[in-house]
Amino acid sequence: MKMEISSNFDSGNIEVAGIDAKKNEFRLRIRKDTNSDFLQWFHFRLTGAEKKNCKLSIINAGKTAYPEGWKGYNVCASYDREEWFRIPTTYVNGVLKFNFTPGHNAVYFAYFAPYSYERHLDLIHHAQMASDVKVEVIGKTFLGRNIEMLVIGKPRKDKKIIWVIARQHPGEPMAEWFIEGFLERLLDHHDSVSNKLLEDAIFYVVPNMNLDGSIAGNLRSSASGANLNREWQKPSKKTSPEVYYVRNKIHETGINLMLDVHGDEELPYNFIAASEGIPDYTEYLATLEKKFINHWMDTCPDFQDTHKYPFDKFGEANLTLCSNYIAQRYGCLALTIEMPFKDNADMPDKKYGWSDVRSRVLGASVLNPVLNVLPYLG
Amino acid sequence: MKMEISSNFDSGNIEVAGIDAKKNEFRLRIRKDTNSDFLQWFHFRLTGAEKKNCKLSIINAGKTAYPEGWKGYNVCASYDREEWFRIPTTYVNGVLKFNFTPGHNAVYFAYFAPYSYERHLDLIHHAQMASDVKVEVIGKTFLGRNIEMLVIGKPRKDKKIIWVIARQHPGEPMAEWFIEGFLERLLDHHDSVSNKLLEDAIFYVVPNMNLDGSIAGNLRSSASGANLNREWQKPSKKTSPEVYYVRNKIHETGINLMLDVHGDEELPYNFIAASEGIPDYTEYLATLEKKFINHWMDTCPDFQDTHKYPFDKFGEANLTLCSNYIAQRYGCLALTIEMPFKDNADMPDKKYGWSDVRSRVLGASVLNPVLNVLPYLG
Amino acid sequence: MKMEISSNFDSGNIEVAGIDAKKNEFRLRIRKDTNSDFLQWFHFRLTGAEKKNCKLSIINAGKTAYPEGWKGYNVCASYDREEWFRIPTTYVNGVLKFNFTPGHNAVYFAYFAPYSYERHLDLIHHAQMASDVKVEVIGKTFLGRNIEMLVIGKPRKDKKIIWVIARQHPGEPMAEWFIEGFLERLLDHHDSVSNKLLEDAIFYVVPNMNLDGSIAGNLRSSASGANLNREWQKPSKKTSPEVYYVRNKIHETGINLMLDVHGDEELPYNFIAASEGIPDYTEYLATLEKKFINHWMDTCPDFQDTHKYPFDKFGEANLTLCSNYIAQRYGCLALTIEMPFKDNADMPDKKYGWSDVRSRVLGASVLNPVLNVLPYLG
Amino acid sequence: MKMEISSNFDSGNIEVAGIDAKKNEFRLRIRKDTNSDFLQWFHFRLTGAEKKNCKLSIINAGKTAYPEGWKGYNVCASYDREEWFRIPTTYVNGVLKFNFTPGHNAVYFAYFAPYSYERHLDLIHHAQMASDVKVEVIGKTFLGRNIEMLVIGKPRKDKKIIWVIARQHPGEPMAEWFIEGFLERLLDHHDSVSNKLLEDAIFYVVPNMNLDGSIAGNLRSSASGANLNREWQKPSKKTSPEVYYVRNKIHETGINLMLDVHGDEELPYNFIAASEGIPDYTEYLATLEKKFINHWMDTCPDFQDTHKYPFDKFGEANLTLCSNYIAQRYGCLALTIEMPFKDNADMPDKKYGWSDVRSRVLGASVLNPVLNVLPYLG
Repeated sequence: MKMEISSNFDSGNIEVAGIDAKKNEFRLRIRKDTNSDFLQWFHFRLTGAEKKNCKLSIINAGKTAYPEGWKGYNVCASYDREEWFRIPTTYVNGVLKFNFTPGHNAVYFAYFAPYSYERHLDLIHHAQMASDVKVEVIGKTFLGRNIEMLVIGKPRKDKKIIWVIARQHPGEPMAEWFIEGFLERLLDHHDSVSNKLLEDAIFYVVPNMNLDGSIAGNLRSSASGANLNREWQKPSKKTSPEVYYVRNKIHETGINLMLDVHGDEELPYNFIAASEGIPDYTEYLATLEKKFINHWMDTCPDFQDTHKYPFDKFGEANLTLCSNYIAQRYGCLALTIEMPFKDNADMPDKKYGWSDVRSRVLGASVLNPVLNVLPYLG
Repeated sequence: MKMEISSNFDSGNIEVAGIDAKKNEFRLRIRKDTNSDFLQWFHFRLTGAEKKNCKLSIINAGKTAYPEGWKGYNVCASYDREEWFRIPTTYVNGVLKFNFTPGHNAVYFAYFAPYSYERHLDLIHHAQMASDVKVEVIGKTFLGRNIEMLVIGKPRKDKKIIWVIARQHPGEPMAEWFIEGFLERLLDHHDSVSNKLLEDAIFYVVPNMNLDGSIAGNLRSSASGANLNREWQKPSKKTSPEVYYVRNKIHETGINLMLDVHGDEELPYNFIAASEGIPDYTEYLATLEKKFINHWMDTCPDFQDTHKYPFDKFGEANLTLCSNYIAQRYGCLALTIEMPFKDNADMPDKKYGWSDVRSRVLGASVLNPVLNVLPYLG
Repeated sequence: MKMEISSNFDSGNIEVAGIDAKKNEFRLRIRKDTNSDFLQWFHFRLTGAEKKNCKLSIINAGKTAYPEGWKGYNVCASYDREEWFRIPTTYVNGVLKFNFTPGHNAVYFAYFAPYSYERHLDLIHHAQMASDVKVEVIGKTFLGRNIEMLVIGKPRKDKKIIWVIARQHPGEPMAEWFIEGFLERLLDHHDSVSNKLLEDAIFYVVPNMNLDGSIAGNLRSSASGANLNREWQKPSKKTSPEVYYVRNKIHETGINLMLDVHGDEELPYNFIAASEGIPDYTEYLATLEKKFINHWMDTCPDFQDTHKYPFDKFGEANLTLCSNYIAQRYGCLALTIEMPFKDNADMPDKKYGWSDVRSRVLGASVLNPVLNVLPYLG
Repeated sequence: MKMEISSNFDSGNIEVAGIDAKKNEFRLRIRKDTNSDFLQWFHFRLTGAEKKNCKLSIINAGKTAYPEGWKGYNVCASYDREEWFRIPTTYVNGVLKFNFTPGHNAVYFAYFAPYSYERHLDLIHHAQMASDVKVEVIGKTFLGRNIEMLVIGKPRKDKKIIWVIARQHPGEPMAEWFIEGFLERLLDHHDSVSNKLLEDAIFYVVPNMNLDGSIAGNLRSSASGANLNREWQKPSKKTSPEVYYVRNKIHETGINLMLDVHGDEELPYNFIAASEGIPDYTEYLATLEKKFINHWMDTCPDFQDTHKYPFDKFGEANLTLCSNYIAQRYGCLALTIEMPFKDNADMPDKKYGWSDVRSRVLGASVLNPVLNVLPYLG
């Protein structure tokens, strides 16, 4: 059986630069996002290599969107598409290298445990079976796919409006794993945090903002080549319809809290980026951000506030980002949640690093700070 | 097929005063605890009554340990021994009455969803399969059963010592459901709260302090007739060995936190009773109790601090109770956790009331306040 | 922690003759059945022996009901009460010996994977949730427990009447595991064998004929000391009510097929004992028995017909046995199904031997020969 | 929320001819297979129609590959993508019509419960975790996807060689559900039928012969437009590589039995088409076919042999079909297994008709006749 690399499946991304079958060496390249120069997400399958000591190199790792991200990063692998473990990896002179002797003939490698479109559709359709949950299609992606939104909770005029969106950047699948854990807890009618939240709030959830890019195996771009999280000021109905329709819907529903879920290539921590740089930043927002962050830290050791992005200077925030745009436009709490591709260095896990399962647990944990700030959302 | 009442199974308790088969009327009596005058727990099976409109009365309800507890209480029932739902119930002139038309030939009724000895053994033996968990048998009950303790966490000299015990009162099975949820979360290696706790603490857990009484279908007494939660000052090796051996073990391990889990017949709330009445009460303890209670309220709406027992006056605490004894003897935080037999009136559930499942979720939630006070435990 | 042996739980049976803690040696005795001299079932727990090389001996193995059964037998053990694996065992000079170094502090040993009363009640109550299933209590055991029968299928006059009973001998729990697999398949509405059977037959199933003896940890006796499978000619309402009530019910329903499920101490095979020795044996019965046996062999390699009991001579059958009694009384097919305590020597499994899981699979497989003979049952 | 029809997902197929939103009427067309005139498979999603009485028509149903198939057919629908139930459907004047008032906002309709590429990959990768299972990639599809084969069983020279392939026709997903049930049983090490088979046989299984067509939502064609089950005499490396590579592999491994799994649009029965029309048909083959068919009927009431295709006349078989080709080339037993799109009229299920679950159960049941003929395979 020949050794082979393949990637023609959901979110697959790799190109073969060369295979030396005698030496079991694979020289690989990540391909660019659709209509864009970004690249960093990879996901491929190696077959026919059981018990062979394979040497794999991603030779254009130095030319990716965030090369610094490879330092301290270990590749994810899976035999059964369920359990994703880590493989020791080095990054030297612009090349990402890892050796691996597969225990089975077929093994997947990926930047992070993938979240497929089929699983996305399962998520949406299972969720709608719960009471007080509706699926709404609010528009079409660039390639014409349905943009699904879940509406959770019986509407009532005085309820707080909470928006949760994820995966504007398709190569950050931890964001949708986060949503899976978030929804599982929110829809558990035995959990008092969830019950309390649904008494006083209604949730609008978009589990995947960038379906086309996710399926294509992109890092940050939609099918049109747009970086959706730079489109919030002037979304284009044509080239960034994903933002265009969600933004319209927010205008329609109003909003008291926005959570926008992401993955970060560099920092081995879970953290939040807030709106300190927007022109209309207020003491109120500063207090609320701090309250949210502190309560999350108090209730979830996997979340911290020490390691994070440098603060934006006052008035210098990039208002094309979702959370800045929303905070500025609506004066409400709007947070970008970042999870690592690597691990949480405060609580490292040698076998799995930061993982799909831990992303789910973190998504469930975020209900606590949401409930904590709920009375103050205005 | 004859209609019949039976109770000769694990934790069964009822006596038949009379059955009028023509009228489908059942007059029942709760029998006394072993060697004791306490009574209130009931658990029995009605067979042969499918589609018959049955009228059941517990005629000695007015003579139970806490007759006030019947006000607002609804009986629990189950067809499959898994789902326990509530039946509308009245308490008038000392008689507890409920009408029910069973949908199947065999139906159980109980004061609360039971937790059997077999399930207890499954709990213990599954737990020991997790890493860093040991089962220890620390003594024998009055009837000679093994008193099992779980030791959770790798020992390390400077770790905080946390004891969690449940079901001193056997007719309060919510306490062991609580432990089940507590253990499930504590042993989940993807949960950062659990991981953080196990970094700095070691847990000693006795899921069932009163095995004999549980199997016998007692409310508050052990097989010898002892109320274990009145035995902590001078436990008898002979008649209250359950307390005797656990107390000895505490003396051996030391202790920084004690949680003692119970059910309360009257109040439709989850609450804590603390140690304010002990002679050596300190500001330190007061602060710590408040911190624990506040953090639990902040993270779990099913827990509250408004409705609870009246405070003990300073120096008047009953030191025969576990938590008072421990707080006085060790100067450490020691809390009695109480769950309702009825419902949580703040967040009522018409179908299930307070339930086995919600007790489990509450047991998982208590890890948060434990972590919150951990650095201050001395 | 002290090393200890305990057996005071459901179906527990052992006595300690002596423990030499320094040598880790345990000298044990099986105790007699209640009010009877039979003995062979054992079930006990060893605690406190993690990582110790324990030497266990059952010193009265030579005085059990069927000492020949120990040859080639290996003890069953479990840490989690779910997975029961085998331990190499020898039988020399009337003593059963096995050495074992437990990987955990608490480990169970048993003659075969036990089936508890709690699990029995779960089985009964889950079954009643399926459509067209009724639980009937048809009488009380010697100790007053409910004798439960499941009626499966919508009654219709011309339907064939099939009785399946198990565990007349309480120390043969494989018989109830068999029933569990049997019921799971029969109640699966996607299985055409089950659907076809239920079109033309009604099933009366007694999953456990000997509840008292099962809980007591007996081998063959009921609580009164009766060997139920020797009571079918003249069952006593007082001392063998289990047979008395079931026999009465059979008289009431009529019967076209009886399956009576057992375990055999000696033969390492699954086999059937039929009714060739009854006075009124017919060609019809001989043909039907052969058809049933052949079809089962054709559809289930775990069943065979080579190794079995010697044939009864014509007219010499013991008519106190269930299957002989029924065949003689009703002229219908009546079979005793025997499973091994050891293994199936035709398809040995080193790790598990014959097991709870394989008994379940065999129980499901018996639907095939039942369907095969159905049209001929008269 | 606008009512909308979408089909841009795995195996989606529909075109909208017109929507009258006021009348809730949807006029739809099935689109042709890729590079082919075949059409009959459909699979689409309706959103935004909760509680609206929708009238759906497939207006080109009369121009599909097998219009007779619509008589007596009822459309499959699902809210959660797991449970697929039937909707009353009529076929009049070439139009397939069904009215439906969705209980949720998003509902799928399909010709039969779909089996996605993601599920296919899960099937393959879970299977390889079992002992003695290898995944082999034996070639590439027309669009370059990996053609995966599972090799099951330790190789041994004298073992019988059994090939099982499915879904040459992509719009017959019941064939892959069949394989899922087949594999689940074959890999269950507690099932003696499976154990016996693996003692004496090695299995080569191709769960999906036509991956490109399956993803595309085709009925019978591959991406090149080829009907793979007409390509076995002269498969083209270029346009029917799926057959080319599998046929090569068969030449390499040899073969003693071929099962080729399909769905049939017309007959509401499970049946087999055999090789009676091949030029080199033998008494041996006739006997073996009969043995296989009879044993399957004897062990599975969902299988029958009354309703089936008319026999091919001697020598007139179409040798481009897999089973005819294999029987003629190798002189071995080769069977085409057909399942209905409608229901099994012998054992109808009003709610589900013939279903994914029943296809799985049937797939498990086929192990019986395979074992029955095993000694005779040459």
